[in-house]
Amino acid sequence: MLSQRQAPLVAALQQCGQRPNVAFYTPGHKRGQGISALHRAVLGGEVFRVDLPELPELDNLFAPAAVIAQAQSLAAEAFGAERTYFLANGSTCGIEAAILATCGPGDKLILPRNVHRSAISGLILSGAMPVFVSPVYDDGWQLAIGVTPTAIAAALTEHPDAKAVLIVSPTYQGICADVGAISAITHRYSLPLIVDEAHGPHFAFHADLPMPALQAGADVVIQSTHKVLSALTQASMLHVQGGRCDRNRLLQALQMVQSTSPSYLLLASLDAARHQMANHGSVLMARTLALAEQARQELNQLLPLRTLQQADLSEEFRLDLTRLTLDCSTLGITGFDADELLNEQFSVTAELPTLNLLTFIVSLGNTANDIEQLGDAVKELVQNLVDPLRTSLKSKIPSTSSGQATRYPLPTPHSSLPTFSPRQAFFTSSQACPLADATGQISAETVCAYPPGIPTLMPGEAITETAIAQLQMLQQAGATFTGNSDVSLKTLRVVQPHLPTFPPH
Amino acid sequence: MLSQRQAPLVAALQQCGQRPNVAFYTPGHKRGQGISALHRAVLGGEVFRVDLPELPELDNLFAPAAVIAQAQSLAAEAFGAERTYFLANGSTCGIEAAILATCGPGDKLILPRNVHRSAISGLILSGAMPVFVSPVYDDGWQLAIGVTPTAIAAALTEHPDAKAVLIVSPTYQGICADVGAISAITHRYSLPLIVDEAHGPHFAFHADLPMPALQAGADVVIQSTHKVLSALTQASMLHVQGGRCDRNRLLQALQMVQSTSPSYLLLASLDAARHQMANHGSVLMARTLALAEQARQELNQLLPLRTLQQADLSEEFRLDLTRLTLDCSTLGITGFDADELLNEQFSVTAELPTLNLLTFIVSLGNTANDIEQLGDAVKELVQNLVDPLRTSLKSKIPSTSSGQATRYPLPTPHSSLPTFSPRQAFFTSSQACPLADATGQISAETVCAYPPGIPTLMPGEAITETAIAQLQMLQQAGATFTGNSDVSLKTLRVVQPHLPTFPPH
Repeated sequence: MLSQRQAPLVAALQQCGQRPNVAFYTPGHKRGQGISALHRAVLGGEVFRVDLPELPELDNLFAPAAVIAQAQSLAAEAFGAERTYFLANGSTCGIEAAILATCGPGDKLILPRNVHRSAISGLILSGAMPVFVSPVYDDGWQLAIGVTPTAIAAALTEHPDAKAVLIVSPTYQGICADVGAISAITHRYSLPLIVDEAHGPHFAFHADLPMPALQAGADVVIQSTHKVLSALTQASMLHVQGGRCDRNRLLQALQMVQSTSPSYLLLASLDAARHQMANHGSVLMARTLALAEQARQELNQLLPLRTLQQADLSEEFRLDLTRLTLDCSTLGITGFDADELLNEQFSVTAELPTLNLLTFIVSLGNTANDIEQLGDAVKELVQNLVDPLRTSLKSKIPSTSSGQATRYPLPTPHSSLPTFSPRQAFFTSSQACPLADATGQISAETVCAYPPGIPTLMPGEAITETAIAQLQMLQQAGATFTGNSDVSLKTLRVVQPHLPTFPPH
Repeated sequence: MLSQRQAPLVAALQQCGQRPNVAFYTPGHKRGQGISALHRAVLGGEVFRVDLPELPELDNLFAPAAVIAQAQSLAAEAFGAERTYFLANGSTCGIEAAILATCGPGDKLILPRNVHRSAISGLILSGAMPVFVSPVYDDGWQLAIGVTPTAIAAALTEHPDAKAVLIVSPTYQGICADVGAISAITHRYSLPLIVDEAHGPHFAFHADLPMPALQAGADVVIQSTHKVLSALTQASMLHVQGGRCDRNRLLQALQMVQSTSPSYLLLASLDAARHQMANHGSVLMARTLALAEQARQELNQLLPLRTLQQADLSEEFRLDLTRLTLDCSTLGITGFDADELLNEQFSVTAELPTLNLLTFIVSLGNTANDIEQLGDAVKELVQNLVDPLRTSLKSKIPSTSSGQATRYPLPTPHSSLPTFSPRQAFFTSSQACPLADATGQISAETVCAYPPGIPTLMPGEAITETAIAQLQMLQQAGATFTGNSDVSLKTLRVVQPHLPTFPPH
């Protein structure tokens, strides 16, 4: 019987690393014998002794029967799943595999418009047709909050032939949707609910955190163990429960989106992260919540600054209180400016700036000293640095930095299917087209303005006059854009006018 | 002006790791502050200080403009490419991206029958139709040697509408095809040649090694920097030259098959590996070749043992002399037995056993002491261990272990296209079908016997009587199988008889 006190993969790897062994296998550095001084100086020497291939003692990620199977089974227990798969290619590959396992070419997938790039890649790889649901948007915070059960229900009523529903919860800012209600609605159609819970792997370990998606009934849940817990970057997990997602197809899909030479450093760090949380998770999370609360209180005293609170959200949404989001627009500076200042003047580095917000991740890795430095730095920013900055950086500040929030136009809701699937748009040749001539063409790219952080155009969609007008308004309002190949937005990348020669999916 | 004495990504990462900084970004361990004692014990502490996200100082893998761009550019120079892309998801993702960038749904890709699993994944993801070319097979060595220019020319004559040619060179055993001739033929059709050079990243650094595929004219070359050089497992490179592969589409494809949170440990280890080879590559390779030569000479004296030599190959093929392959059948034991014995009795671990062969990788990480231990262990194996083993393990030994090589039937050459594309086979439901009833059905899986290591069935192919007869003969002859979900081979996984409801690609 396995116990959460064990870490079978860590133990096996450690043992292999210590065993005297003459290596005529990969990797080429042979347990560190072949690395240069430079290499050792940056990564340390120990890591190379355990950078090992799939030796018999170390099991096999794609046909796990020993230590990886044990480690995954302990993780399933700790995170509340029936079955857990370790991922060596980040949550990206988990989202893609979940889509490939549930949606074939032409199948409909219901998902929020402000989805992560990996879901768009999943659409391209699978050939699925997106049915986009608009997220709730908060004008005051200039932030996409998340999708509601009502919006998912409406999409399912209109598209009862969909094959799966995918939602993002929590968002980057820690806002969680009502996964329980969405899961109940989705299951009414016998469909699997996939939850991109990349930012929520800690939820299972403290009652004051939002309810984990698995507990709320989700079928497939992808978590970035590295983002919030202690795994190495790029190490994630995919959890499954119930029978709505074909596990055989999921396993096949997982093999396609990951290296056949997965890194044992990444895999073992998932076992170590699980071991840490299973044994000390509730203490660590209580401490993390307390640190975040202390920071939130300090920052809220620094008027006119404000931080995102549970009270700012409607009852349908729940905030992960370890996530701190500052509204910098109340200071008259952008999130980008605040980020740069804090980083350069105080060596305090946040996670994500947007035009008006700045988000910080407080995790089990932060200390009381970190929180103190954060408080001091922001205090200094508010009291002594903002005024001169406001003058010197005037050009960077959105025109309505007067305290009134700019109203950024939201993309028109897209309940209709795109003209081409994202896959067709990917495989069809594209060309740059002047913005003025783009009406009626098919977009070959995603164009997403921040704010609102909800794409105006997605690959495969017909470009409407309204969309072009909105892009122009957003640009004038000082929004920043991602996805578009021409940063000036003078041209849009469009699918070449002649119809493609390949079949529709 | 950059110099090969520099390692820009390593330097930037080291600097970020040393800088005092309060981290409110991913990963959750915050520069190692949050890791457990267990985690530190297995991976060392240093690695966590440099396990950092895409901080501004560290550039961005998918839009490189600073230190990653510099590191990739130095790598391109060192390996002889125009442009190099670092891969954090192994050569697997490089092969897939090369196929996605060159072949759309329904497009024909010419490739050897004994291709790596990643190419089959590339076919599934892209929807391309495989045109399989049979590799030359050596009955004496029971080994697929590689594809000839003549075979590629024939496939191109029959399928001039193909979109790309993909070959594997070197093979696992270090056998290189005539990439120059194949590249010239492929370019006559204005097609790109993709070379899976996973086992050949060292070729550019010594004249006694086979000619690198890039120098021989290949357009896209994927190398597992980790397999033979000193990068961490899962860190690879994709090199490009010329205009035959659309680089914009390649870059988009590379973004789909890799994590949006790539590990800087993996990326920096590519920079360190390049730095080592650019500055000391020829000395390191001369030393490695000398060690391998010493081992080869010692082993060849241990009659009746024999090692694969250049003289065993026809003139069209070239052997990487750092790869050692033993023919264990001359000892009357299997490669699996020899592998187990060497590992358990002498702690000498090889890379790859097959039924009759055992392959060792000699790399820059091996020492004179390693070679000595290898020689001693194999000597002991031949002189004192094989006879008792032959008796005790009789059942495992192929029936013709008398010294005469078993003749394993080769799959019938498949110049015709499969009935379904591998993509269709993946997305169509499948079921187990008794072997006797499988004739005329469509295979949903790869079934590959070793020997000969050339698949008898591929997903999407109609199952012929001949194929079934061959599988039965191979099983009786003691071959081992991979790919098939029923290890007993009593059933085969077949596409469900009713036609799928989705379009043909």
